[in-house]
Amino acid sequence: MAVPVRACALIGRFSDPRVGECVCALLPHLKARGVQVLVIEGSELPPPGLDGVVPVPEGEIGQRAGLVIAVGGDGTLLYGARLVARHGVPLLGINRGRLGFLTDILPQDMLGAVDAALDGKLESEQRTLLRATVHAGAASGDPARRTIEALALNDVVLQKAATGRMLDFDVHVNGRYVNTHAGDGIVIATATGSTAYALSCGGPIVEPHLDVVVMAPICPHTLSDRPVVVSARSHVEVRLIERYETSAQVVCDGVVVGDLQPNDLLEVKAAEERITLLHPPGHDYYRLLRSKLQWGRGGRDLSR
Amino acid sequence: MAVPVRACALIGRFSDPRVGECVCALLPHLKARGVQVLVIEGSELPPPGLDGVVPVPEGEIGQRAGLVIAVGGDGTLLYGARLVARHGVPLLGINRGRLGFLTDILPQDMLGAVDAALDGKLESEQRTLLRATVHAGAASGDPARRTIEALALNDVVLQKAATGRMLDFDVHVNGRYVNTHAGDGIVIATATGSTAYALSCGGPIVEPHLDVVVMAPICPHTLSDRPVVVSARSHVEVRLIERYETSAQVVCDGVVVGDLQPNDLLEVKAAEERITLLHPPGHDYYRLLRSKLQWGRGGRDLSR
Amino acid sequence: MAVPVRACALIGRFSDPRVGECVCALLPHLKARGVQVLVIEGSELPPPGLDGVVPVPEGEIGQRAGLVIAVGGDGTLLYGARLVARHGVPLLGINRGRLGFLTDILPQDMLGAVDAALDGKLESEQRTLLRATVHAGAASGDPARRTIEALALNDVVLQKAATGRMLDFDVHVNGRYVNTHAGDGIVIATATGSTAYALSCGGPIVEPHLDVVVMAPICPHTLSDRPVVVSARSHVEVRLIERYETSAQVVCDGVVVGDLQPNDLLEVKAAEERITLLHPPGHDYYRLLRSKLQWGRGGRDLSR
Amino acid sequence: MAVPVRACALIGRFSDPRVGECVCALLPHLKARGVQVLVIEGSELPPPGLDGVVPVPEGEIGQRAGLVIAVGGDGTLLYGARLVARHGVPLLGINRGRLGFLTDILPQDMLGAVDAALDGKLESEQRTLLRATVHAGAASGDPARRTIEALALNDVVLQKAATGRMLDFDVHVNGRYVNTHAGDGIVIATATGSTAYALSCGGPIVEPHLDVVVMAPICPHTLSDRPVVVSARSHVEVRLIERYETSAQVVCDGVVVGDLQPNDLLEVKAAEERITLLHPPGHDYYRLLRSKLQWGRGGRDLSR
Repeated sequence: MAVPVRACALIGRFSDPRVGECVCALLPHLKARGVQVLVIEGSELPPPGLDGVVPVPEGEIGQRAGLVIAVGGDGTLLYGARLVARHGVPLLGINRGRLGFLTDILPQDMLGAVDAALDGKLESEQRTLLRATVHAGAASGDPARRTIEALALNDVVLQKAATGRMLDFDVHVNGRYVNTHAGDGIVIATATGSTAYALSCGGPIVEPHLDVVVMAPICPHTLSDRPVVVSARSHVEVRLIERYETSAQVVCDGVVVGDLQPNDLLEVKAAEERITLLHPPGHDYYRLLRSKLQWGRGGRDLSR
Repeated sequence: MAVPVRACALIGRFSDPRVGECVCALLPHLKARGVQVLVIEGSELPPPGLDGVVPVPEGEIGQRAGLVIAVGGDGTLLYGARLVARHGVPLLGINRGRLGFLTDILPQDMLGAVDAALDGKLESEQRTLLRATVHAGAASGDPARRTIEALALNDVVLQKAATGRMLDFDVHVNGRYVNTHAGDGIVIATATGSTAYALSCGGPIVEPHLDVVVMAPICPHTLSDRPVVVSARSHVEVRLIERYETSAQVVCDGVVVGDLQPNDLLEVKAAEERITLLHPPGHDYYRLLRSKLQWGRGGRDLSR
Repeated sequence: MAVPVRACALIGRFSDPRVGECVCALLPHLKARGVQVLVIEGSELPPPGLDGVVPVPEGEIGQRAGLVIAVGGDGTLLYGARLVARHGVPLLGINRGRLGFLTDILPQDMLGAVDAALDGKLESEQRTLLRATVHAGAASGDPARRTIEALALNDVVLQKAATGRMLDFDVHVNGRYVNTHAGDGIVIATATGSTAYALSCGGPIVEPHLDVVVMAPICPHTLSDRPVVVSARSHVEVRLIERYETSAQVVCDGVVVGDLQPNDLLEVKAAEERITLLHPPGHDYYRLLRSKLQWGRGGRDLSR
Repeated sequence: MAVPVRACALIGRFSDPRVGECVCALLPHLKARGVQVLVIEGSELPPPGLDGVVPVPEGEIGQRAGLVIAVGGDGTLLYGARLVARHGVPLLGINRGRLGFLTDILPQDMLGAVDAALDGKLESEQRTLLRATVHAGAASGDPARRTIEALALNDVVLQKAATGRMLDFDVHVNGRYVNTHAGDGIVIATATGSTAYALSCGGPIVEPHLDVVVMAPICPHTLSDRPVVVSARSHVEVRLIERYETSAQVVCDGVVVGDLQPNDLLEVKAAEERITLLHPPGHDYYRLLRSKLQWGRGGRDLSR
């Protein structure tokens, strides 16, 4: 962050009034500081609209912005992370109303945080990304084709699709057979994603700086089939087992990226790229956790 | 409630300032209505103290009171339930600050609720009690002695004691062998108690009027050892298996009632007695659940 | 079963060799007893094929058979249950290799069990069925159309579909608002179905004769969103909340029966019809549970 | 293991016939190889008893043995680990009948494994130990006294004791406040211990070489209070909150090491000492997991 930021991208669902309100306050502030504001082509900004704002194609945000400000929920920041993953551009997340795990700046603290970000005074934190690759036909003996390649900051998920039928699939880690799972699928989550879908599946909370991955089965058929924590340097392979009406899809950070067929191989490993998140000074992960999970608040609420 | 209530017992930890405050408002109100106020012998009331209040031995509350008002948390009402179980006296629960599952009247609604209770205008609800009996030496062939007999509105718990060693024990239901459990113990809960300890052990929430019992193993060693719901008309038997340094205790509604030895039999079944709880009109169990479990409030809080 | 059984339907995936083997032994046995054997039109029997066997349309099995023998896994018996639900025909389940929860007769005990069934000497047990009805547009103010009506012996499931996006939906029980769930869906299971999908979702095991229903959220977003047990006489209503890319389907006993749109109402209640299962004398539910869940076998397997 | 092993300690409950049998086979084998056999003073060996065996005080095993062979269950190896922690002596675990997580050599493979161990041909693996220290009165302002200091290979546990009352306690990690827990206690487990008590408490399985610690609350009162994975380099502090009838004990690897009072501080961090486990070549952690958790075996056992 030694180089001054000349261009900053604003992303979010600008049609959401609370997002729009934040944007209306951010635009003049950024302009007053002489920072060029980029938005994704096709974005409809609240009045006065695109006046003084530069629309750029989605694929160029990573090259042209020195900072990405995501306004909205964690989903917006996850989207921003995919845009900048290959470019090392830092991300700042502003939530519209209450704290998110990733969008941890409240609207009231927004202008100060943006100033600090532009001045290089925020804490920056590296987060691991996963790369999911589907090698179609890899298990059939034919030459495999790479049909899907996608990055995820939270998680790569294999889940049952159209037919709603339970899946059977094998998991290997670093070439070693782990287990054959029967169930709704599996969540392969980074430490960042441990508080997302994986947590709903019974996975643990993982401190975000730890270089580990959680593999959490989704509604597994076998009751002793439990989440497993492995090194983020692991090479995870998932293969679907052919079964009547099997239909499975691969989802990265909540976005369906394609199907997995019984002869395909889904490979998941840490990406070479990493994401840089900016946090306000004094950022406290556990305070965020307590706030999000309502720890303490409900207190001694059962009849014990 | 057709017979007018002439005497009403007040129970609670009167030394707790929030409880004392409620009692100070209740006393003159009850006297003004010509209702005699009973407290348990030895209670220290806030000023003006016992003036006009009749201390009675703990064991006589059930006979002499026509209504028991429990002021405090659910634990206070559980205590009151044991006092009146054999006497059919209704219970009204006033919480000091926020809702409890059992003490579901807030201080601000207290006087109106007491009036309605005295006038027989509250909804009354019957709740099942469990009776726990320990037959010492029952499994040894010698004549068994009944060493423990206690009632529980929430739950009868077998748990590891002094040595902190895991327990091994068998459970039979209606004479049929269910399972041999290894772990920290088992919670045998009424529908009422399903939102107490059993819920912490992974048991389900059970609508309070259902005549079922939840048997929830505590931290079981076998991962497929899961809570089982049986009829409240069942006869549950638990026998400890002799093991190095085994030490187990029986707990009813949070109070240790005695030990269980390897040759003893712990028998749990529905008591003939039932408890009558009074609720304000329009009482809504699900609203209480939502409030206690913070459903909806935290909303979409994970990063999905 | 006082009336002698004249016609018996055989159902199953006859192309599965283990199923075929059972069928090859059953056919001459049934013929020798003078019982007419029905199969569903289009079934391909193993050699000698349909010789002496009467193919009937799927929809007529319930009227023409006095007994249905399901050979295969529990899925085959669930299919049979739908065929006979309206006709009170008893079902006998033969598993191809090991015990199922519903197909609880092993091949080696098959002929004796069939004889006993034909002689009316088996224990018969009534099981509750759920009826799922989708009233399309019920929430829009327009006149609703009944678009789906289906029965389920195990469970009615609302689950996320094509887009893989989490669902938001409201549940009411007997007209009372219970909760707004965010997650992958909900399983509404009979006691019979408590050991199926609901168990994978953290629901309790319920003794099969209990007249209760388990509502188990699937991977809920809110961690305190837990399974709830209600009376099987309850009237459960589920309404989807409109959300970006929402796509939901209704599944009965593992078969997708249709979609649920944001303005639709999914209504689930106990059907008037019930299912009659036949069991060998001395049938022991807990022995079955121990066998299926491997209770006891793994024993003290953790490092404690 | 370059230096030849001259003395080898045998530990176990020799009165267990299956252990005794292994020992009877091991003794002549070790003598034939010229290895001195040490046992703990007071051990009663099966006939021919102590002939040619050297009893040494428990506290000297670590100095005098070049190898410790633990015969029995994982508990025996945990005990051996405490004996040698300060001395770097490798441990070999022989189970009496079936595989343990730590005692992963079966009796039939025992002699070959011992030969390989003596020849330095086994795979050796370093495992992290935790050090638990209780600083009595640390929170009272008075000078604290160190009242407990103990090592654990699996876990340090704070649990409710004599009164059976739920505990309230605070946890800090590296000086940062994490949460106030209400419940039966907390398990602080190494990766090794993740498949022990922590797993019964809903913690994840952690690959044993990962340098992390799992903090798993025991039956927490707040349903969103979930296991947290932190770096094994963390400094964990636990403080009990004063409460009516609070009684808490500290347990290391299943052995009660003392009490924790409300003014005390329980400090847990990685020990400088590490444990060396010996494994047969081709040792496969996931094969062990599958065997212990019966993965795959029960297969598709629910009625789905």
